[in-house]
Amino acid sequence: MTHPTANTPAPSPCDLIIKADVVVTQDDARRILTDAGVAIKDGLVLDIGSYASMETGYCPAQRLDLSGKMLMPGLVNGHTHLPMTLLRGVADDLPLMEWLESHIWPVEAHLTDELITIGAQIGCAEFIRTGCTSFLNGYFHEHLTGNAVADCGLRAVLGEGFFSFPSPMFKTAEDCWQTLRGLNRQFETHSRVRTAITPHAAFTVMPEELIASFELAEELDIPWQIHLAESPMETAVCLDKYGKRPIELLHHHGLLTKRTTLHHCVDVTDEEIEILADSGVNVVHNPVSNLKLCSGISPVQKMLDAGVMVGLGTDGASSNNQLNMFRDMGLAALVGKVRHEDASAVNAQSALDMATRNSAHCLGWPELGRIEKGCPADMIALDLAYPNLMPVFNYVSHAVYGATGMEVCMTMVGGEVLYLYGDFKTIDINLLRTNALQASDWVHSVAER
Amino acid sequence: MTHPTANTPAPSPCDLIIKADVVVTQDDARRILTDAGVAIKDGLVLDIGSYASMETGYCPAQRLDLSGKMLMPGLVNGHTHLPMTLLRGVADDLPLMEWLESHIWPVEAHLTDELITIGAQIGCAEFIRTGCTSFLNGYFHEHLTGNAVADCGLRAVLGEGFFSFPSPMFKTAEDCWQTLRGLNRQFETHSRVRTAITPHAAFTVMPEELIASFELAEELDIPWQIHLAESPMETAVCLDKYGKRPIELLHHHGLLTKRTTLHHCVDVTDEEIEILADSGVNVVHNPVSNLKLCSGISPVQKMLDAGVMVGLGTDGASSNNQLNMFRDMGLAALVGKVRHEDASAVNAQSALDMATRNSAHCLGWPELGRIEKGCPADMIALDLAYPNLMPVFNYVSHAVYGATGMEVCMTMVGGEVLYLYGDFKTIDINLLRTNALQASDWVHSVAER
Repeated sequence: MTHPTANTPAPSPCDLIIKADVVVTQDDARRILTDAGVAIKDGLVLDIGSYASMETGYCPAQRLDLSGKMLMPGLVNGHTHLPMTLLRGVADDLPLMEWLESHIWPVEAHLTDELITIGAQIGCAEFIRTGCTSFLNGYFHEHLTGNAVADCGLRAVLGEGFFSFPSPMFKTAEDCWQTLRGLNRQFETHSRVRTAITPHAAFTVMPEELIASFELAEELDIPWQIHLAESPMETAVCLDKYGKRPIELLHHHGLLTKRTTLHHCVDVTDEEIEILADSGVNVVHNPVSNLKLCSGISPVQKMLDAGVMVGLGTDGASSNNQLNMFRDMGLAALVGKVRHEDASAVNAQSALDMATRNSAHCLGWPELGRIEKGCPADMIALDLAYPNLMPVFNYVSHAVYGATGMEVCMTMVGGEVLYLYGDFKTIDINLLRTNALQASDWVHSVAER
Repeated sequence: MTHPTANTPAPSPCDLIIKADVVVTQDDARRILTDAGVAIKDGLVLDIGSYASMETGYCPAQRLDLSGKMLMPGLVNGHTHLPMTLLRGVADDLPLMEWLESHIWPVEAHLTDELITIGAQIGCAEFIRTGCTSFLNGYFHEHLTGNAVADCGLRAVLGEGFFSFPSPMFKTAEDCWQTLRGLNRQFETHSRVRTAITPHAAFTVMPEELIASFELAEELDIPWQIHLAESPMETAVCLDKYGKRPIELLHHHGLLTKRTTLHHCVDVTDEEIEILADSGVNVVHNPVSNLKLCSGISPVQKMLDAGVMVGLGTDGASSNNQLNMFRDMGLAALVGKVRHEDASAVNAQSALDMATRNSAHCLGWPELGRIEKGCPADMIALDLAYPNLMPVFNYVSHAVYGATGMEVCMTMVGGEVLYLYGDFKTIDINLLRTNALQASDWVHSVAER
């Protein structure tokens, strides 16, 4: 038996050591470690390095052996509408306004708290299953989504969507501000749930209310986010109403700032990309939704080249129809190439950056999306025994082009395991399926009214 | 106890009755049955209907209870290069010729029988796992792929690729014809493996050899298949060499017939689409590969509207990088919309048809791709308990837009179960992973030479 000498410090205590064949860190140097270990304490990454060095340096309360697995940061979803998961597949193959006006809005007008909660819970289960650990959400009755997120262990930034026409939610803008202040108060001390201000779009919210909402975001010091430049149709409406294109309009009103995140940015000119870069705004790319609603393909590589921070999102399940960041990550890389007529555009590393580090910036939570000392322990593991991940030459290529998302065998947020080898730790998946079946009966009955 | 009367026939014997919540038949009427049953005998569908009626009518040797699952035809992959699975992720984000000349061909020049077999086996495992039950393959040493397919229980049509320049495989065209005749003889009595003639492309095989190969296809009465109109680069080379665009060239030589299947057809004009429709050729769309290699997006809806039979393929894993027909099916629907600037283009039913019935025509095996009396029992089941398949409004939408392919929990070919609930019945997946790891070491060593 050997005794520690004065020169050999005793191992420090930690909560957990994870062992993995590979860790794709997504740190600043984009290090990829093999035979690696990660030590976790108080929900944060305490240290990362070789597995042997973790065992030498730390004394863990628990160990998690992920041999044969690849550890990577949990994916960060920059844009979704979680309760709309309830309407997955209700209507497909339709243009945006017909889809909204004839199929989505009529059902949404009758949603109850229970149904919104079920939709949010199904979405949470899909995120956990497919390795998304945090997301930005915009919908109505966001306290319900907040409760679902708080219960299941995920991390989210929540905003209440609003329009400048009377909606079932808010009669006046003042009603909305009060709801937003209440939402902010409800979660102000929560470690995993934060809030944002999320007006719907420049063509559905009048400029004075956009400005007022931005002032509220500044007062509460939270992100301000909006759908913008999603399609040529939106541009035409803005030009008709205000004589300005959407980005021009927001720029004119001083709303393009580091606090701002713009969702979509499909219909943007080269000059507008310069404005986006100069202003320091964040942009979220939603490739599946943009294809499905026939909005177009965003010039992502041009924005990245100009220095714009571009993250990635799934949008809602009714325009995707998955909430699977792996699919959007692969598609961002694939459609980026034809958009730019360049097979090297939006390469695998860029796509992974968008889905992790960049999206984290879009959420206003830049310490997410990487496995690095001092950052939250939000991590996922891919099982390399899936045939579609054989053989291995490039781990980043496998994450972006090879994986479906279902290879995720472990999902962790803030050091807590939410899913492990088929087992949901925080969600009763059988009860959820029963509730989903009942909810679909309800949607059918409303749609047939 | 009741006795059968003269009016109640005794149940007929069959091999298996499957019970499923839903069956998406893909028959001519596109019937979708609930609380359904399928009776199977001698590898064929003996009957299909309500589960109760199957139990009344048939006396099965075995039963398979797929409650909570959705049964559908196995997907038919119209175009792949299976042994190239060995090179998955070796090089990404590169244009076609740089990718081939600098990364793929140098490694392929050193392939051994053992490595080709391992590549083919990994590909077979991925097909079985993600619900593809039959495919058209074009590569070299096809007897090796044939053996892998015969062993694992899948169904395939195999062709030997050839060029009009000396390749490591064939010094002369006559060498190739002999190999093709040998391959055809080897599998002529096999129930699941057939052969085709697969010259590489119109810009790499000279017209007289294209014609000679077509005559061989006629003599052996097997399909004739070729990469065609894949990219504007190919068109430019054909125009330069022959003064004709690729489709024009084949049309001129009388090679566009019902026996013909053209892979890709990205760079085609409206006039060429009319020629394709009039000649009765089949076309295979490969959306992921066409995006990744920046070839463009094929005008699929225009071809379908003109009456062209358009199937679907993954292409090889080195340009995809998956062999997952569910991904290509979803992507066909998604990119079809932006290609045609119409959100209703390539709708979910069309995409499912392409991946099943239409691809079956491309393989020259039209009784595949449907669950129908008298057709081969090639079927898969999706587990509806996956969160991304909740709730359910439209089963076809779920297959095309909602599923990743990993929801497949049962894969059957010719009545034989190849995969069930995580268990590969015909492949030793652990041995395959060990072999894949060794193969990747070999590829690394060749690439570094």
